[in-house]
Amino acid sequence: MATVLTDADLPGLIDAAGTVAVCRDAILAAHRGELTAPPRVHTELGDGNLIYTTGRLGDKWFGYRSYDTIKGGEQLVVVHDGSDGSVAGIAIGHDLGRMRTGAIGGVAADALAAPTASVAGIIGTGPQAWMQLWAINAVRPLSRVRVYSRNSERRHAFATNAAERYGIDVQAVNTAEAAAEGAEIVVLATSSGESVLDTAAIDPEAFVSTLGPKQYGRAEFDVSLAERARLVTTDSVAQLHDYDPPFVLAGTPHEGRVVSLGSVLAGEAPHSAGALFCSVGLAGTEAYLLARLVGLA
Amino acid sequence: MATVLTDADLPGLIDAAGTVAVCRDAILAAHRGELTAPPRVHTELGDGNLIYTTGRLGDKWFGYRSYDTIKGGEQLVVVHDGSDGSVAGIAIGHDLGRMRTGAIGGVAADALAAPTASVAGIIGTGPQAWMQLWAINAVRPLSRVRVYSRNSERRHAFATNAAERYGIDVQAVNTAEAAAEGAEIVVLATSSGESVLDTAAIDPEAFVSTLGPKQYGRAEFDVSLAERARLVTTDSVAQLHDYDPPFVLAGTPHEGRVVSLGSVLAGEAPHSAGALFCSVGLAGTEAYLLARLVGLA
Repeated sequence: MATVLTDADLPGLIDAAGTVAVCRDAILAAHRGELTAPPRVHTELGDGNLIYTTGRLGDKWFGYRSYDTIKGGEQLVVVHDGSDGSVAGIAIGHDLGRMRTGAIGGVAADALAAPTASVAGIIGTGPQAWMQLWAINAVRPLSRVRVYSRNSERRHAFATNAAERYGIDVQAVNTAEAAAEGAEIVVLATSSGESVLDTAAIDPEAFVSTLGPKQYGRAEFDVSLAERARLVTTDSVAQLHDYDPPFVLAGTPHEGRVVSLGSVLAGEAPHSAGALFCSVGLAGTEAYLLARLVGLA
Repeated sequence: MATVLTDADLPGLIDAAGTVAVCRDAILAAHRGELTAPPRVHTELGDGNLIYTTGRLGDKWFGYRSYDTIKGGEQLVVVHDGSDGSVAGIAIGHDLGRMRTGAIGGVAADALAAPTASVAGIIGTGPQAWMQLWAINAVRPLSRVRVYSRNSERRHAFATNAAERYGIDVQAVNTAEAAAEGAEIVVLATSSGESVLDTAAIDPEAFVSTLGPKQYGRAEFDVSLAERARLVTTDSVAQLHDYDPPFVLAGTPHEGRVVSLGSVLAGEAPHSAGALFCSVGLAGTEAYLLARLVGLA
């Protein structure tokens, strides 16, 4: 009988450090070619789509995540036991996907932020921003966080909640630049279609992570963020190059610089201070995480 | 919280007559354009695929069935509540899909077999054959069934089990023609890539249903089965014309004769004795059935 998990079950099963460790394994498995993750597919249903991202880990398991753009409703992650095709686990809700996106950011920060980094600046206060803080704090215990979003009420609520949750100094600030100033880790996690901060405000040594839009004509950062970066990396080069409209760096000198986080983790690409991580949500990682949670691999 | 059903739950929720009634509603909803069912999509995972068939009934629900060709493992049927996108129901297993395929055959038999038909011939003894008997017996109470498959042990076991289950005269016979002779309803439910019986053995007035392969170069019947038919119908003209390799009647004078079962049910195409029903498994019907079982529509 399949294990059926809801969002309420997840915190009791795995913590941030554990999720980061699993996602690191997943990224390395994809890098080694063991985790197969073909391009996502969708079906059109009038005013929205159902979207399916699929993954497989050799003979161990296969599975997928499904989500809709009709209502943005609950998502499903499903894993089948590779030995007989039976359904081993189902996760219903929003949090498994958010946890893995957070954790992938944590993997990148762990690989590329200064080992002693403890000051973070966060632009954006939605669920993605919240989960980046959750994961990054597990790999770089933070002492100070500055947070900015356009909505004053929301940034203050985020600061209050985060300070209470993690027992650290979290303050809302009035500009994105103020959030970035002095930060060793800068997170962009907005839904903005335009650049959200002046790149000059970011320390040259800082690790920067972008979670939000990164397509031509609709991106939360501009090319100057790549110019300052000594390394540009992503969890999936293939997915980044598959964007339509294209990746915001396509056609710039920076397009060819993008290396996979997997190759960085494997020691095949240089680690470097001042890196930019472009998070795209490597397909198959949600199923990978669920497979671990239900004891499949 | 989503209702999660397994195969063991289904018999307690709905019977054959009820399933036929729901599938009739689904076919009519598709005919009226209310049930949207875009072409199925798949992702490739090495030595097999994951396949997704999607459906939507206006603002009431949307959902899908997923199944694999890696292991032929358990399938999933999922319906989301159209009002908020929450997952309303999940069915795990094999039987919901089989029940709806059986019931679609029952809808066709109810529309096109003689009102007093009580003698059936069944070629094939797998789960599809079993579910055709289940559904047809609900719309035309049978008095006599003759069953044939190449494997003698299996056809005798089928006959014994069916006689016991339905309390009717079921006998295994030694040829497909012997099963068809005198039958008012003939069911082909094999996995054969070649014609399984001599069409001349079928009564001109008999209703014939084909569940098995029906593609060019791989079909359980040949063009003579369409020649004898006064009406050729299917649960999805679009899916039939989408076959690759093409539908076995493509390029013959019979290709253009194929009308949808929905139009027959709606009275827009003639009912006729001696009809041939080509079952393809109208997409969206599995989700339609699950939506009913969980009280969504």
